Amino acid sequence: MRLAELSERSGVSTATIKYYLREGLLAPGRRVSATTADYDEGHLRRLRLVRALIQVGGIPVATAREVLVHVDDDSLGRTIRMGAALWALPQGPESDDGDPAVVTARHEVDRLLEMLGWSTAREVGALSPVHRSLVLAVSALIRLGYPWGAELMAPYAELMYQAAERDLDFMEAYPSEAEQVEMVVAAAVLFQPVLKALHRLAQEEESARRYGLE
Amino acid sequence: MRLAELSERSGVSTATIKYYLREGLLAPGRRVSATTADYDEGHLRRLRLVRALIQVGGIPVATAREVLVHVDDDSLGRTIRMGAALWALPQGPESDDGDPAVVTARHEVDRLLEMLGWSTAREVGALSPVHRSLVLAVSALIRLGYPWGAELMAPYAELMYQAAERDLDFMEAYPSEAEQVEMVVAAAVLFQPVLKALHRLAQEEESARRYGLE
Repeated sequence: MRLAELSERSGVSTATIKYYLREGLLAPGRRVSATTADYDEGHLRRLRLVRALIQVGGIPVATAREVLVHVDDDSLGRTIRMGAALWALPQGPESDDGDPAVVTARHEVDRLLEMLGWSTAREVGALSPVHRSLVLAVSALIRLGYPWGAELMAPYAELMYQAAERDLDFMEAYPSEAEQVEMVVAAAVLFQPVLKALHRLAQEEESARRYGLE
Repeated sequence: MRLAELSERSGVSTATIKYYLREGLLAPGRRVSATTADYDEGHLRRLRLVRALIQVGGIPVATAREVLVHVDDDSLGRTIRMGAALWALPQGPESDDGDPAVVTARHEVDRLLEMLGWSTAREVGALSPVHRSLVLAVSALIRLGYPWGAELMAPYAELMYQAAERDLDFMEAYPSEAEQVEMVVAAAVLFQPVLKALHRLAQEEESARRYGLE
């Protein structure tokens, strides 16, 4: 397809597509003459992912480029490739290891992973930005005096594990490994707000059931 | 307790506490002399909540004040009181009703709520900012070409419902209705990052189990 059709089908303006091409976020089309290039379904898919990262996720262009380098690296195994792409997403602040709340939080997260038998998460541990994010989020609760520990987190972790199984089932329905990795990255950015809204809506619903709307 | 002890136990500096007092985020202490006031456990609890909203949640002072007005309004029933406090939290952009992706998303959310039998969520509908957030999040997925509908969302919604039941059980362990409402607001701000991190960690774990770490 030509640039105009790529723009129409993706809903991204031609000026923005040209910007993404210049920034290396989108591979050049196949040149068919001095002034025109041809784009395929792969370009359309990539454009949707770039839009998800930048326009919906608010991720800086340089970070998006780094995420896409990992998405495209088919020398890596699937878990590592997905992990590298996800780890390149913005992860929030580093934790302060001298902070006693962080020390307690790390201990509780370690206990949690042991209780659950999540052996990869335990081995990778503090190397993973996701692990660090969890420690940081738990330390915020502990610092504010909420009694938050492994036993309280475990049932929530089990629910999130069921969600993760569904995520991967959904991902596996895509035919190629490249599309699967793209889907995982898009889901990490786009799907979180859906889960958050479903959670709050469920709280409202359950609260109305328990206490009525008096 | 005196201001110095309140500061020490809460980890909030006396200058910041004085600022919160001036801004009406914290009720004045009981005056015991011209220059000193006495604070109680209620002040400590409220200070933790204010810190959760402002320092962790990054919520503007004016918004936090509005949230707290609802938290303190014991003329309301419990569901309405929690709802009002949660609805006063920042909710993200309004949806554009002329956008076809928003129209499709709203239709899918309505079908979802009907499938689930969430009757309060259906009745309150677009009045709820949470409902609007969900429509907006789903419309972002639809606009980017992901095949996202009621059937795909339903199992995730059931998982979030189980999480919401746990949330309310946890909340009910607090003795007074005032503390319970405070807990719900703090959880909405502080607990979301924990769930998000648990979800991503579960994805890494399940991915390693399915595909190994080759």
